[in-house]
Amino acid sequence: MNRTLTLGLVQHACGEDPAENFERCREGVREATRLGARLVLTQELFRTRYFCQQEDPTAFDLAEPVPGPGTAALALLAAELDVVIVASLFERRAAGLFHNTAVVLDRDRGLVGRYRKMHIPDDPGYYEKYYFTPGDLGFAPVDTSLGRLGVLVCWDQWFPEAARLMALAGAEILLYPTAIGWDPADEPEEQARQTDAWRTVQRAHAIANGLPLAACNRVGLEPDPGAPGQGQRFWGGSFACGPQGEVLAGAPADRPAVLVVPVDLSRTERVRRAWPFLRDRRIDGYGGLTSRYLDLRPGPDP
Amino acid sequence: MNRTLTLGLVQHACGEDPAENFERCREGVREATRLGARLVLTQELFRTRYFCQQEDPTAFDLAEPVPGPGTAALALLAAELDVVIVASLFERRAAGLFHNTAVVLDRDRGLVGRYRKMHIPDDPGYYEKYYFTPGDLGFAPVDTSLGRLGVLVCWDQWFPEAARLMALAGAEILLYPTAIGWDPADEPEEQARQTDAWRTVQRAHAIANGLPLAACNRVGLEPDPGAPGQGQRFWGGSFACGPQGEVLAGAPADRPAVLVVPVDLSRTERVRRAWPFLRDRRIDGYGGLTSRYLDLRPGPDP
Repeated sequence: MNRTLTLGLVQHACGEDPAENFERCREGVREATRLGARLVLTQELFRTRYFCQQEDPTAFDLAEPVPGPGTAALALLAAELDVVIVASLFERRAAGLFHNTAVVLDRDRGLVGRYRKMHIPDDPGYYEKYYFTPGDLGFAPVDTSLGRLGVLVCWDQWFPEAARLMALAGAEILLYPTAIGWDPADEPEEQARQTDAWRTVQRAHAIANGLPLAACNRVGLEPDPGAPGQGQRFWGGSFACGPQGEVLAGAPADRPAVLVVPVDLSRTERVRRAWPFLRDRRIDGYGGLTSRYLDLRPGPDP
Repeated sequence: MNRTLTLGLVQHACGEDPAENFERCREGVREATRLGARLVLTQELFRTRYFCQQEDPTAFDLAEPVPGPGTAALALLAAELDVVIVASLFERRAAGLFHNTAVVLDRDRGLVGRYRKMHIPDDPGYYEKYYFTPGDLGFAPVDTSLGRLGVLVCWDQWFPEAARLMALAGAEILLYPTAIGWDPADEPEEQARQTDAWRTVQRAHAIANGLPLAACNRVGLEPDPGAPGQGQRFWGGSFACGPQGEVLAGAPADRPAVLVVPVDLSRTERVRRAWPFLRDRRIDGYGGLTSRYLDLRPGPDP
């Protein structure tokens, strides 16, 4: 049985006005659908500029409840176009409690699931620990009419554990809304290593789990409001790959793009028969994975 | 502090005669040392042809105890050349109990540690489950005069869990003796995907853990004794990469090679400050990693 899922990835730049960003994304979703996409993935926090470049208490005003106006608008769009939309929002759960949340809207069924970003980064230019409480829903895929989706978000993409847990829970595809860019002060060689590492580590999740994968990233230079002349240049490069990590399609680094790519979900069955990694995992030897570090554990005798 | 470790990788073909194979490897180790290597890595089961192409009870005759003649010869060589050798042997532990074992010989200190391959493959042409009992020493790095080595073997390279556990136990580099090749009956496109996936998944272990990594693979067509006209074409391609997955050096696919490559171990400190994945692992959410599959676990409400 051949099960093809045609993905759409909507990569765009973001400005100050959330309504305008939403409109850009909506136009991208429509375009992807016209080109045949049945599941459309947005970039991370597509409604807003990447506000985490500084710690600004007023930026919490950008958050919204889930369900809320964002999911309502996305649900309308999903129903109108008869598609599944996986979108990333800034979720306000309570006063002083916010998450970086991906939501899933399934055709005319509305909001069918959410994933709260589990791994939260924090480094110069990406002050996310200030804004986002780490997710408390675990690594649970979302069931939709098109399949079981392993939705993760950005920084999660560096953690093989996240991809593995989604695979073990039956995800049929891994999806990553993302906002990642270069510090323009870095050397071009360092920038190239970063982009390549970003793509490589995700392709490896596809390989290690025998699953297709897609990542959708924003583009454009967003100035740092707190540091004139500085900012982040988001590197686009949204892509999809198959279960051997083979790249199926990729977007440019420097401009918006709507990527539409058919993904053969049934290939997982064939690839996992050839490379049956799930058969051979040494679960009896993996206990240390729930430790922070193993410096306290005595090693075996030589 | 800059700590450079110069690695040598000895990639060669193997024939029927273990003594001759050993001599090829020994010459490679000498050559690597002449070119500046301080730590030399062999390919998997370098003393023998890849006997796992069929299930043959007489092939157990190729095994040897550890310590035994193989480690004695390697220890002499390590002492003579004042290098660390990481080598792969077919270990006979008891009648009916055999392992695929990597051994570590540290300059004039002899055998200082071993690793027994934890993940054992088994698929047409690679009947390893017949020969090798899965390792029972866990994922414990080996301390040497040149650093703490995360030694793993071949099929382990597809499992992010193995690399992660070595990193958590303080490994400073990941090392993979390997024997992997193409089924000559496969299409060239499939062969290319396999090679690329093999390299990609290992580079991703380097990235996810901020560690340098090296893999040493054999070359040459080895006919399948049980199936005339068939066999495995080992794809060589031994390589080393740095902690961002950046490839530092690579060997050809079709001929023997001695690769010597300086690796800056101190780069891990800098890379992990920029990408502090170990800081952010959600160990409270990783319990499922010790499950075979999570089909029995109820998911959260949507």
